[in-house]
Amino acid sequence: MIQVVEGEFDLIARLRAVVEGAEPPGAEHARVRVASGDDAAVTVPAGATATSVDSIVEGVHFRRETFPMASIGRKAMAAALSDLAAMGAEPGEAYVQLGVPADLDTAGAEELAEGLGRCAAENGISVLGGDVSRAPVLWIGVTVVGHADEASDFVTRGGAQDGDVLVVTGELGGARAGLALLEQPDLAERLQPDVADALRRRQLEPVARLDVGRALRRAGAHAMIDVSDGLAGDARHIARAGAVRVAVELERLPLAAGVAEVAAAQGEDAAGFAAAAGEDYELLAAVAADRVNAARAAVEAEGVNLTAIGRVEPGSGLALIDRRGRECGIEGFDQLGASGSRGEPV
Amino acid sequence: MIQVVEGEFDLIARLRAVVEGAEPPGAEHARVRVASGDDAAVTVPAGATATSVDSIVEGVHFRRETFPMASIGRKAMAAALSDLAAMGAEPGEAYVQLGVPADLDTAGAEELAEGLGRCAAENGISVLGGDVSRAPVLWIGVTVVGHADEASDFVTRGGAQDGDVLVVTGELGGARAGLALLEQPDLAERLQPDVADALRRRQLEPVARLDVGRALRRAGAHAMIDVSDGLAGDARHIARAGAVRVAVELERLPLAAGVAEVAAAQGEDAAGFAAAAGEDYELLAAVAADRVNAARAAVEAEGVNLTAIGRVEPGSGLALIDRRGRECGIEGFDQLGASGSRGEPV
Repeated sequence: MIQVVEGEFDLIARLRAVVEGAEPPGAEHARVRVASGDDAAVTVPAGATATSVDSIVEGVHFRRETFPMASIGRKAMAAALSDLAAMGAEPGEAYVQLGVPADLDTAGAEELAEGLGRCAAENGISVLGGDVSRAPVLWIGVTVVGHADEASDFVTRGGAQDGDVLVVTGELGGARAGLALLEQPDLAERLQPDVADALRRRQLEPVARLDVGRALRRAGAHAMIDVSDGLAGDARHIARAGAVRVAVELERLPLAAGVAEVAAAQGEDAAGFAAAAGEDYELLAAVAADRVNAARAAVEAEGVNLTAIGRVEPGSGLALIDRRGRECGIEGFDQLGASGSRGEPV
Repeated sequence: MIQVVEGEFDLIARLRAVVEGAEPPGAEHARVRVASGDDAAVTVPAGATATSVDSIVEGVHFRRETFPMASIGRKAMAAALSDLAAMGAEPGEAYVQLGVPADLDTAGAEELAEGLGRCAAENGISVLGGDVSRAPVLWIGVTVVGHADEASDFVTRGGAQDGDVLVVTGELGGARAGLALLEQPDLAERLQPDVADALRRRQLEPVARLDVGRALRRAGAHAMIDVSDGLAGDARHIARAGAVRVAVELERLPLAAGVAEVAAAQGEDAAGFAAAAGEDYELLAAVAADRVNAARAAVEAEGVNLTAIGRVEPGSGLALIDRRGRECGIEGFDQLGASGSRGEPV
């Protein structure tokens, strides 16, 4: 829990106030019995819970030179919530672990907390607790809990069936292109200013697709995952968890505006760039062929596109099909690896 | 959730196998529907849940030079579980966030995971998920979830009543003295080898008092907190949360063997040293005067001592009473402050 010790520990009390202040007026927290300030937060979940943890680390997932503090907070929360979106969960609670470097001043820490809190509030999430430590670099670890009436309501990565259509929400490659723009500002000369802005926002302030995830669940999605490590890697998870083969047609990938130009500037094929791009936080799902139209309507009702990009077949593994109908290979992003979209520029 | 991406991401799969291998055979996990490997873990809590997060950071809470990797894992888990103990919770689930520096080899990471997993298994906790990132220093963030039939079964920090007796489990000051021994090995010359060993273990491998916490809950404790930031600071939390005054008689503090000698070597009063010492992970509780004997019997049945160290009175704040009956002041440990037991030597 957030530990408020006398003296210098005012910072934590302030951060807590900022996060709690971000909650929408009238938020009900029907499940919450004891919020922050005790040894643990007490809730009364009515049915099943989905719990996930996600961390972002300065120098690995962001640099303070290019990320405003509020964006860092937003990004940490959205990245964690994206896992709940991929389960089709109802929003619930969050807990935040902060590592605060000595050179982060109180105003900066408050901005960070504000970003975290606002993102939580916008998604109907109550921040119930946290922990603050000194640390050599800025670190944010977020634990999120979502809910459903029954455990079987959640959509897991497994469950894709032969004949299913693979669909993806929104647009791909934007977060990676946005990162390239932040790290190499010259690239923006190739783009309309509003296109460049939109790409940067995809990197700085990703959106968790909680509403869309629930819409896909209600539309009967068989399997779902969020596109956090790159479409190729995440599609492979669907294949493995479902013991099926997943074939993705690269030319069908919905690219965010400007991605093709940024990829070209870096000497890369646009679809390959997008398929290996992490942090888009779109949802990838396997849907029965006769449910695709219903799923599309449900997702579009949330203001988001849904694109069929491939199919589920008997077999195993991922097949990436290029525009000539040939299989090709693209490595997904690996957080511990030396390469990959998040590993490159930092 | 633990993200297993192909290629170099084998480390995570190995860590997961190590943690899961530590679970006792026949562990039932009646609440678990989906464990690690999906976007989120799915559980079906039967009643109320208590959730807490706790992080330990290299250079702040430990140094790899003095801490074996298995001890770091154990310590991270025990520190988090101690918050559940302080709620009187039944053990439930844990989620682990790891920051792995480049100079930590696979064997070291596995040792760490083994320590985490063993500590969890010994306490009846299922590790259901995690997240691994690169990081400049070793970081372990642990989220723990405990259970009770009803929210009101949990013992919070609030609830201490005028006339209650303040009791503490086990012995105090040991973890701080153990840290002093690790950082200044010469100090050990003043102690019997087994006494020095026991003190070092208090620092390296703290024990979460889950069984004892439940015993105190069943014995009717009105308020409870774990002694993680120093008895003085934690007693102050009880006073504030209960809107009462808490008076602690320093000469009654149960000191771990060898603490007096280590304190003397550092020019400190033994009781003051112990009252300001963090990381003992004992439990501090307010118990009705006529329930103290029953509480003591219940705690002793778990093989742990229970000592009455003060009383709850009308008023506010903490009074530390020295052996002459005078009030004196001792600052509790502040994780963000420059001083304090954990801040000193690292």
